[in-house]
Parts: sequence; structure tokens; C-alpha cells
Amino acid sequence: MSMEPLPAKVLDLLRLPNPAVMATVAADGRPVTVATWYLFEDDGRLLLGLDAKRTRLKHMAKDPRIALTVLAEDDWYTHVSLQGRVLSITDDIGLRDIDRLSRHYTGNAYSTRERPRVSAQVAIERWHVWGRLRG
Amino acid sequence: MSMEPLPAKVLDLLRLPNPAVMATVAADGRPVTVATWYLFEDDGRLLLGLDAKRTRLKHMAKDPRIALTVLAEDDWYTHVSLQGRVLSITDDIGLRDIDRLSRHYTGNAYSTRERPRVSAQVAIERWHVWGRLRG
Repeated sequence: MSMEPLPAKVLDLLRLPNPAVMATVAADGRPVTVATWYLFEDDGRLLLGLDAKRTRLKHMAKDPRIALTVLAEDDWYTHVSLQGRVLSITDDIGLRDIDRLSRHYTGNAYSTRERPRVSAQVAIERWHVWGRLRG
Repeated sequence: MSMEPLPAKVLDLLRLPNPAVMATVAADGRPVTVATWYLFEDDGRLLLGLDAKRTRLKHMAKDPRIALTVLAEDDWYTHVSLQGRVLSITDDIGLRDIDRLSRHYTGNAYSTRERPRVSAQVAIERWHVWGRLRG
């Protein structure tokens, strides 16, 4: 894993609406993975949007360390694995963040409006790349 | 997460050569994710093939609990998250297992023959599904 700044071609990939899987660690220490939307923000942080009732939120509150693997849509051997730390978990007032995520992935606002959502902001601490992102 | 037997449509999905991301837990407790091939065996266990030098092996030897999220190739919102336990880690003598994995995903034997590989056999303990696998 590298702790260097992310290279340009990795940044270019991260800005696309790619399939991604995140991992948290449960209270008993076991890893838990789930597919997720993410947004790579201009400040270099990751935005994740979660239903306010998700078990993952409890994991993140107890241990803020998470991992995210982002797959290139056309060739998933090309992928980036990120390790990071949740900096904040805030209520997504007005569903502003999940709408940004949804527009990025689908072109439309988020369809489920009645359930509260939260936003997690994640600082990337380490990364590793495979496939055409190498070298 | 369910601990019930996997339903038929989940089994059908798991048998396809799907993109997948596995998570292990490092010695310091942080989660680590990486894209991976997997094979869902007839006995209901998962086969993972790893380069014998991978850090993940150390993680699995220290804490055998892993997670794997399998994405449907055509619609990655449809996905299965599995949690399981590594039952054994054995040398892949003659690269038999990685060839099985490679044939499943690419149609061909594994191209890199000179590096030692190991095979991890994983018992699935819990699962959760999303998308068209629900209901």
C-alpha cells in the first residue's frame, strides 16, 4: 500500500461512477462488505451516503477505519483499493448528498425520499492499484 | 444477515464468473479490500486463489474471518455479501486451483506459471442480498 498522493490516472478513474465495495469492521472484529456508491470530492475525500438505520454506521462509529475497492466498469481487474478513516458522520439534511451521489450514478435525484440518510466523509490514507493503473 | 441456506437464485448467481471484492482484517484491525476471483464449489464452499506472497495470507492466518461481495455483471446493485471463515490454506500444487479459477473467468489456464500460489477454502456463515435477488 502506498501513502503517496494519488496519481492523475487514478484520480481520473475515481471520478467516474464506478462499481465499488466498501468494508467496515463489526463490533466482534469481523469484516463486512457491501456494494456502495461513492463520490470522490474535489478536496480528495470520499463521500458515502448511507441509510440512517444501517448496521455499518454502528461499525463506523466504533472503528472509523474503512476500506473501499473501486472497479473500472469496463475491466474490473483494473481496480483501486483505498484504506481510509471516517472523519464525520452527519445527517443528510434535505437528502442533498444522496441526490449528488444518485445524479452521479444515475443522472437523477434519489428516488426514496421518506427515509433519513446520513453522509460519511472519509479521508483516504493508503491506496494500491492493479491492472492498467499500474506503472 | 441471514444464516439460512442460500436460496436457488443466489446459488445461480454465485456460480457465474462475477466481479467480486474480498475483505480481510489486518493485524492492527483495519479492513483491507481487493478485487478477487472466486469459485463457488459444489460442496457450498468458496475457493480463493492467492499469490503465496500476499499480505492477505498473513491476515487470514491471524484472523480467518473474511467477507466477500459478489456483484452481478450486468447490474451491480444486484449483489450478494457473504461472511465466512477460512477453513484451510494449502499450497496450490501444480497450479490446479488457480487454473480452475482462471478457466472459469477467462476460458484459459492461468498465464503466470512461475510464482507459487496458495488456495484458501472458505465456509460461508452468513449472507445478505440486494437488488433482484431479494424476495
